[in-house]
Amino acid sequence: MSKTNSGFFFEDYSVGQTLIHAVPRTVSGGERALYHALYPARHALYSSDSFAQNCGLQASPIDDLAAFHVVFGKTVPDISLNAVANLGYAEGRWLKPVWAGDTLRSESEVIGLKQNSNGKTGVVYVRTRGLNQPDEVVLEYCRWVMVRKKDLDAPAPETVLPELSKVIPADQLVVPEGLNFSNYDFALAGEPHRWGDYEIGEKIDHVDGVTIEEAEHMMATRLWQNTAKVHFDLTVRPEGRLIYGGHVISLARTLSFNGLANAQMIVGLNAGAHANPCMAGDTVKAWSEVLEKAETATPGVGAIRLRLVATKGGEPFQLRTEEGRYRPEVLLDLDYWALMPI
Amino acid sequence: MSKTNSGFFFEDYSVGQTLIHAVPRTVSGGERALYHALYPARHALYSSDSFAQNCGLQASPIDDLAAFHVVFGKTVPDISLNAVANLGYAEGRWLKPVWAGDTLRSESEVIGLKQNSNGKTGVVYVRTRGLNQPDEVVLEYCRWVMVRKKDLDAPAPETVLPELSKVIPADQLVVPEGLNFSNYDFALAGEPHRWGDYEIGEKIDHVDGVTIEEAEHMMATRLWQNTAKVHFDLTVRPEGRLIYGGHVISLARTLSFNGLANAQMIVGLNAGAHANPCMAGDTVKAWSEVLEKAETATPGVGAIRLRLVATKGGEPFQLRTEEGRYRPEVLLDLDYWALMPI
Amino acid sequence: MSKTNSGFFFEDYSVGQTLIHAVPRTVSGGERALYHALYPARHALYSSDSFAQNCGLQASPIDDLAAFHVVFGKTVPDISLNAVANLGYAEGRWLKPVWAGDTLRSESEVIGLKQNSNGKTGVVYVRTRGLNQPDEVVLEYCRWVMVRKKDLDAPAPETVLPELSKVIPADQLVVPEGLNFSNYDFALAGEPHRWGDYEIGEKIDHVDGVTIEEAEHMMATRLWQNTAKVHFDLTVRPEGRLIYGGHVISLARTLSFNGLANAQMIVGLNAGAHANPCMAGDTVKAWSEVLEKAETATPGVGAIRLRLVATKGGEPFQLRTEEGRYRPEVLLDLDYWALMPI
Repeated sequence: MSKTNSGFFFEDYSVGQTLIHAVPRTVSGGERALYHALYPARHALYSSDSFAQNCGLQASPIDDLAAFHVVFGKTVPDISLNAVANLGYAEGRWLKPVWAGDTLRSESEVIGLKQNSNGKTGVVYVRTRGLNQPDEVVLEYCRWVMVRKKDLDAPAPETVLPELSKVIPADQLVVPEGLNFSNYDFALAGEPHRWGDYEIGEKIDHVDGVTIEEAEHMMATRLWQNTAKVHFDLTVRPEGRLIYGGHVISLARTLSFNGLANAQMIVGLNAGAHANPCMAGDTVKAWSEVLEKAETATPGVGAIRLRLVATKGGEPFQLRTEEGRYRPEVLLDLDYWALMPI
Repeated sequence: MSKTNSGFFFEDYSVGQTLIHAVPRTVSGGERALYHALYPARHALYSSDSFAQNCGLQASPIDDLAAFHVVFGKTVPDISLNAVANLGYAEGRWLKPVWAGDTLRSESEVIGLKQNSNGKTGVVYVRTRGLNQPDEVVLEYCRWVMVRKKDLDAPAPETVLPELSKVIPADQLVVPEGLNFSNYDFALAGEPHRWGDYEIGEKIDHVDGVTIEEAEHMMATRLWQNTAKVHFDLTVRPEGRLIYGGHVISLARTLSFNGLANAQMIVGLNAGAHANPCMAGDTVKAWSEVLEKAETATPGVGAIRLRLVATKGGEPFQLRTEEGRYRPEVLLDLDYWALMPI
Repeated sequence: MSKTNSGFFFEDYSVGQTLIHAVPRTVSGGERALYHALYPARHALYSSDSFAQNCGLQASPIDDLAAFHVVFGKTVPDISLNAVANLGYAEGRWLKPVWAGDTLRSESEVIGLKQNSNGKTGVVYVRTRGLNQPDEVVLEYCRWVMVRKKDLDAPAPETVLPELSKVIPADQLVVPEGLNFSNYDFALAGEPHRWGDYEIGEKIDHVDGVTIEEAEHMMATRLWQNTAKVHFDLTVRPEGRLIYGGHVISLARTLSFNGLANAQMIVGLNAGAHANPCMAGDTVKAWSEVLEKAETATPGVGAIRLRLVATKGGEPFQLRTEEGRYRPEVLLDLDYWALMPI
């Protein structure tokens, strides 16, 4: 029998099943340096120990999205190796900062299943948790993917559709212990705009762009130990490698520094769609829209809900066609909560 | 007189000569992160401090092949700058783990010389040792290269051919102090297959592939401070840069995770041939064959001897033509010992 | 009003103004590893803790040019976002080593202004300081750039031209505290040549070359958080991304190891010109000329003043045309002081 991993097929999942994902990973200043080399990352809290300490943290944590990618990457061999499409995210929350020296691992629980009417594929809903070395949950999110059946004669499972919040209520966001913006240094952070300066409905064109090279997205994707063939092997995708969706998320988020430099920490992921595939040679730009604002239980720390859109061309602020579909140049439509000084 | 290094020519070597290679190097979490970015590295012992500690080690060591590359890279200016071909490896052993913070340097002893009948080149045999900051040998290997003569009139040295083991006997392999697989976590390691599950003669197609980009192999090769021009300078190789053979070794070894996830630590290098040149654009795949199995003096730790073959196309498990030569798509044929939980 | 940074225009500067540059940055072994992956860096003092300790330092510092790039990168959003050209450097001095774990930030003082006769641009002179977490100045340099006016009707400022030394007198160079070359290991450093072995007027062809790939220079430039669009976005430069001048400086300096391995630490930057643009596909080579030699107050530590020239083709030692202009293949003409064992 083959010793290699052929991944899970739709009929291999059952609701309530827990998947222990392999290959725990210790992160260090090396991962931080690479995050800065691979993305135009400039949020000061993730760049400087001094800045983070001035905000009440013990040190600069590993970037929130880097932590997400490490946790996500581990799930790929068990969840998305035979996936046809990554359909959505919900209820993502960052619960504890990840520090240099921490070791992360991932677990997923199957929380929903629905076979498609074609009988060839089905949708698998999982809740994934990232844990550190004392087994504290550092982040969690739900994700659903369309997965192939291997045995088309396998019976359809009972349909279970999880109830997922469209938006995480602001009072369920977790502000890291000790976070304190009372001495926040706006000059060192790079922009003067506070939480109070943003209006709901406001849109920001982040102006800058990056034309992606193959070596960069492969290095990023490998760094997160995401092994899906389509990102690496041109013999399985002669038309060009498909860029890992998370690479586009990190590019868009880091480009959004220009206009949202003080949206320091991502604490909630409400929803996300990879609207169109991204390939090397695409020039990624980003724009944001302020969707909601809320105070948190921590004085001085505000929560801002943002739509972050990544594009490969076209004008900013264009999202959908008249028929309501994503425009062809839209790569990503992400809905997240970040923390800002009030 | 020129101050730049023109390298050693065949007539510059003498049997018994010791070469102190330059530029010691301190390794850190940065080298580990880059190893994960440059190769699809997932062996858990080299990825996670927690996993390594659960196996009795103080922390996750620097990847065995990363340590090899650091040691090897230092030898290039003294041994292979004027080399025509890298002919073989033997008697490679990993003797001590390399930890983040260690400083490595290399020394080589010339153990054999044989001028070729054309009078223009000769074969130089060296035994290279990598040493850490308290001058403990962390790894050693023999290597022989064909080197040009500069002065064709220089007399041929007495031929000395070292006696080299074809295979390192299993009882000469060094199991790292403290290594203990009694609490080994197969779920976190990624596969259930133990040493006892592999049969001699068994072949494994590792399935995954990576199409190489120029920037990646150059960054890898530079990281090991290997300075051979052919890897970097298109004006000396307009047909394309030649990829450092060690890059192919690391690619093949990391691809072999899929089917050999529990072959955690490389402890012996019996033989190796870079069968054909590799260039950017090649899609590297790998397959393995189980050659031998042995117990070690450490209970629960088994040794497995593997042939690791890297290819750029073609079908798996094809090694040689009818005439006995390596097939044109074969890049690497490596024979090594690894440690696995019994 | 737009929340994104549109940069400073010529009329936004005034003499005496201090600019606090954003985004402090903590450096670690990750930055060191990337410096070795991106450049053929081999100077032993920046590669090995043991070697550095043997030279009286507490550990191997972050490479002098890496520290320079971190400090420089922070100034880009405030100084060169609307720059037409980077005109020159002067009075650059390295004052304190930067250690892994240090956090760097930058400040600049405007020390000169001169509107050009066309009324559309002007020259801005700044003195930039890099500071560590206890606010010690680790390095400083002057730089002047040509910047666009936004409002062509803005009145020309009073012309102030700073007096800048053409060459830093050797007695103003700062030898790091504790530096001691009395146990200097020439074998481990890679070359036998001492300060006394170099003659004024001597020229060295560094022989090696690197053909640059897009992914490499973008990763390097991002690592220093330099965000100038022209380095990343092919839609603003369809003819090819312009490579950050500092990337060429680091390439040339690291190539100069071959012949100047013992010019360990850069302590002074007298002058520098980016003579022609560099783009991916160019093969960068380097040559040096010994301009001056001086003793320092530290016994055994000599200062050597070097011209470092980077080229993309052509013969070594050719700098200017008959008309006195830089030849078209010259990329960089740098004048710096380094420390060597006497």
